[in-house]
Amino acid sequence: MHIDVLSLFPEMFTGVLNTSILKRAQERGAVTIAVTDFREYADNKHKNVDDYPFGGGAGMLLKPEPLFAAVEALKQASGKKSHVVLMSPQGAPYTHQKAVELGTHEHLILLCGHYEGFDERIREYLVDEEVSIGDYVLTGGELASMVVVDSVVRLLPEVIEHDSHDDDSFAHGLLEYPQYTRPADFNGMKVPDVLLSGHHLNIEKWRREQALIRTAMKRPDLLLNVELSDEEKQFIEPYLK
Amino acid sequence: MHIDVLSLFPEMFTGVLNTSILKRAQERGAVTIAVTDFREYADNKHKNVDDYPFGGGAGMLLKPEPLFAAVEALKQASGKKSHVVLMSPQGAPYTHQKAVELGTHEHLILLCGHYEGFDERIREYLVDEEVSIGDYVLTGGELASMVVVDSVVRLLPEVIEHDSHDDDSFAHGLLEYPQYTRPADFNGMKVPDVLLSGHHLNIEKWRREQALIRTAMKRPDLLLNVELSDEEKQFIEPYLK
Repeated sequence: MHIDVLSLFPEMFTGVLNTSILKRAQERGAVTIAVTDFREYADNKHKNVDDYPFGGGAGMLLKPEPLFAAVEALKQASGKKSHVVLMSPQGAPYTHQKAVELGTHEHLILLCGHYEGFDERIREYLVDEEVSIGDYVLTGGELASMVVVDSVVRLLPEVIEHDSHDDDSFAHGLLEYPQYTRPADFNGMKVPDVLLSGHHLNIEKWRREQALIRTAMKRPDLLLNVELSDEEKQFIEPYLK
Repeated sequence: MHIDVLSLFPEMFTGVLNTSILKRAQERGAVTIAVTDFREYADNKHKNVDDYPFGGGAGMLLKPEPLFAAVEALKQASGKKSHVVLMSPQGAPYTHQKAVELGTHEHLILLCGHYEGFDERIREYLVDEEVSIGDYVLTGGELASMVVVDSVVRLLPEVIEHDSHDDDSFAHGLLEYPQYTRPADFNGMKVPDVLLSGHHLNIEKWRREQALIRTAMKRPDLLLNVELSDEEKQFIEPYLK
């Protein structure tokens, strides 16, 4: 898989792309990632990429030309089937399922806006889809695209041991159960007895129950997409407000 | 405002904290930000910060001691009232309103988990709240805390011109209306006539309508928290599925 990121601030990405799992994934050849400053594609002599909005309003907008030219160039260079994603607070909410889906593309191009926003024609004609990592406003799309890169890449084959994903929050639609490590007693704060019992069936049962309770109390909305047994439905009833 | 971030990968933050708005905010003295490697607070000679989960399971968990010690040290050093936030997929969904609220604290301490997760006692006894930037899994809490830092800091006084926030997506509960800049005709893709008309009342009306249409079609859930006139309710009816 190849990922191209288009941003006016490529230097923001260095630390994130060269650390931990993202570093390892590139070293193992699971993914190649390039960040390009689309100011290089501005067609005016001052390399301006922004301009005032028609109809008035605060702030500047990203002009259409540089991004159209940059995407065209990256598509040509890749030769693979490209999928263009715009980072924007207006996009469809980004989820674990979307991370899985984006991971199936051979070539992703992620567009990072900045400043007040971007010309609507970018959204309408240039991109295949628009995703929002959450209902908050960021200075630019850079952090959003790092979130997409990280969450997509960690799911690629050979990047993390496969077993690890089975315990991921959201992988089964429930929040993860509580986990504990040593010491068993930390300043009087104790690990639940069942986890010290060595009784694996009881531990499994406790973990499933805790995941259900926690999801019911913190994120009941997630339960709509989870298949529960009749017994489990009864079990969580008291935890639903 | 002072923000402390506790992470095992401080080098991930360099690019993000030294660019654009976050850089300017620090230069202007609106905020100070420090990233500390909590491995420094491990009390064993190998500086281990993780250990196996009780009861079995894949992956390692962050041990409680280093984070408890690090938070205690940062609280002591600050002398201000501290608010401790854990980045976790299990947290309350992070929103624009939460960014506004976190911006009212004098001292924020953001904890970034990594690996499979962290000992439950950290969640239960050490933190004031737990936030999730979205329903997806990241390699660690680092990107999540960068998202929180960016979204909180850009709202602080004197960081961005105040007017700019009035047009933010979510600031009024609606998605932002479409915006356009030059050229008025880009390869046949045209700017809507009303924006070129110079008629400010019509432009205002068109923008409000577009924001309503867009929100109704893309994110009808957001309309639950917006006050609409009867006329506006009628107007969006056809756009709601």
